[in-house]
Amino acid sequence: MTKSQNVSGIETLRWKDSCLEMIDQRILPASFEYIKYDSAESVADGIRSMVVRGAPAIGCAAAYGIALEAIKLSSESKDSFNKGMEKAFEVLAESRPTAVNLFWALKRMQEKMSASKNASLNQLADILLTEAHEILAEDIRINRTMGEFGAALLADGARVLTHCNAGALATAGHGTALGVIRSAVEAGKKISVIADETRPFLQGARLTAWEMVQEKIPVTLITDNMAGHLMSKGEVDAVVVGTDRVAANGDVANKIGTYMVAVLAKRHNIPFYVACPLSTIDLSIPNGGDIPIEERPANEVTGFRECQWAAEGVSVRNPAFDVTPAELVSGLITEKGVIEMPTREKITTLFLS
Amino acid sequence: MTKSQNVSGIETLRWKDSCLEMIDQRILPASFEYIKYDSAESVADGIRSMVVRGAPAIGCAAAYGIALEAIKLSSESKDSFNKGMEKAFEVLAESRPTAVNLFWALKRMQEKMSASKNASLNQLADILLTEAHEILAEDIRINRTMGEFGAALLADGARVLTHCNAGALATAGHGTALGVIRSAVEAGKKISVIADETRPFLQGARLTAWEMVQEKIPVTLITDNMAGHLMSKGEVDAVVVGTDRVAANGDVANKIGTYMVAVLAKRHNIPFYVACPLSTIDLSIPNGGDIPIEERPANEVTGFRECQWAAEGVSVRNPAFDVTPAELVSGLITEKGVIEMPTREKITTLFLS
Repeated sequence: MTKSQNVSGIETLRWKDSCLEMIDQRILPASFEYIKYDSAESVADGIRSMVVRGAPAIGCAAAYGIALEAIKLSSESKDSFNKGMEKAFEVLAESRPTAVNLFWALKRMQEKMSASKNASLNQLADILLTEAHEILAEDIRINRTMGEFGAALLADGARVLTHCNAGALATAGHGTALGVIRSAVEAGKKISVIADETRPFLQGARLTAWEMVQEKIPVTLITDNMAGHLMSKGEVDAVVVGTDRVAANGDVANKIGTYMVAVLAKRHNIPFYVACPLSTIDLSIPNGGDIPIEERPANEVTGFRECQWAAEGVSVRNPAFDVTPAELVSGLITEKGVIEMPTREKITTLFLS
Repeated sequence: MTKSQNVSGIETLRWKDSCLEMIDQRILPASFEYIKYDSAESVADGIRSMVVRGAPAIGCAAAYGIALEAIKLSSESKDSFNKGMEKAFEVLAESRPTAVNLFWALKRMQEKMSASKNASLNQLADILLTEAHEILAEDIRINRTMGEFGAALLADGARVLTHCNAGALATAGHGTALGVIRSAVEAGKKISVIADETRPFLQGARLTAWEMVQEKIPVTLITDNMAGHLMSKGEVDAVVVGTDRVAANGDVANKIGTYMVAVLAKRHNIPFYVACPLSTIDLSIPNGGDIPIEERPANEVTGFRECQWAAEGVSVRNPAFDVTPAELVSGLITEKGVIEMPTREKITTLFLS
């Protein structure tokens, strides 16, 4: 257990000295630094610029953004508080479009506010901060539960391919996809990980590889275009990824390239699992085609950070996510159990159960 | 026509001042520099370190490597010449394993030597240099012929995805896959190109994008993992790639990631064409599983050049090529015409025709 707790113990987000602190994931693994946030606007900036990323972590950050703003405004008039909070919800909601956990967390904070109409502003700020703490703690508990359900799906000795980083760094801790791997390792299974580097932001090469190296879980890095070759050589036993939003019919939006991995897995009869807390399922979206897909700046594709290599004058596309149709998904791993071959009916039933 | 000749006019390899000069493709497009080569060993180094890359260009380089060595050794004794030449063939044959054009060109030079047993060493050196010049000139002629056959397959307005660089820089000029695109543009068709960046060596971002920008052919750069998303959105009309070796049954070895593109193209009913001079077809290899796949150094995957971003301690796989089974190939574009849905029988027939 100790091994796993090393990194699961890493606090992607933490509350310190009346501020939110978040690990700057843009500079990992070369540097490990926290950045301090004291307002909704600054947290929105942190989300937009990808200091924090990963659907569940973005949800937690947004909740703290609301709490921070409430604390800041609690000495103002009720009217000015309300106006300020309205703006806080807006600026956070506009920070990134695809991960639904952001909207889920904001809605939860909004409901908490509405339910506490008679509280003083100081009390309200306290209530919202407590709720943010609870969202964070809940996320870790949920990831541990999902981890146990998911671990049962992995055979001893399994070579598991993952795309992007759905690890401790994408959540409050433990991780969703990497949480499944961690839980399998904790259960005594020998698991090795194949990490897609995940261009353009390189979450696989930088974050997933780093998390796994820290815990001494064997990890092999490949470029995204090598997954098919390894599958064709029989070197991949299962795929586990996270998700940013699942539509009501089971279509999965996740980091760009996930669709490609799913198509290849299908061709090679390799199970393709999606670790997905219920907060990531968006029943209001009937199917994946309706999920908004963020387009990010061109300089992420023409190079990486200051290292720019592409020919000048080239046009660029940079969709940050893609949609994997439910038919390619072997199972959605949730905190209420695994939905095998997900359908609208199975998903609705799980929510009602 | 002028537009196309700008870049087709770029001499990837050229004979100057009794030396072979090759554009250093490792530093393109930031710098454009020729490196001088005067021996088989130095040319082998240039091939190994990817100063020159692309199957047809490697074949040309190897032919010049042999000619250079013959010139160098022509003042030695016959015995010492023969020993030296034997070593030259060896060192060049060991430079890279996958592209068959290397072995094809070496065999052709070997046959020329064997056929000229009565020549003086000076005459022999002349004969070999003339043969190297002929291989280079032939390559351009063949690319133009393939280009015309291939151009007929592309509709006016087609958005053509390509992987890696099978352009003027991968050949003696005009290119194989990009030759098809150039010929279609010359024929008056409006073609736009989607270039996979092609990790880890980034031939798409650096070389294909550069060639297309130079000629004002519209080109959009994507990371390799975006191809599936664009196909699913109906934004790709055809795929054209080059190849390093085609087995007798039509299986295609090409730059890592090609297989993934072919699988995605099949799913979306997008034609997948391979531009392939007959020198790239290896009748001695029954199927793709027998084609040797080069594994290259880890530091190509953990970063790009001096820019290293991966977590320390991670393991790495770096297969430089993969194999696309013939069933996924809509057509092999050769200088003798297009082999649609290639099979062993169709390929054999074309060779005998």
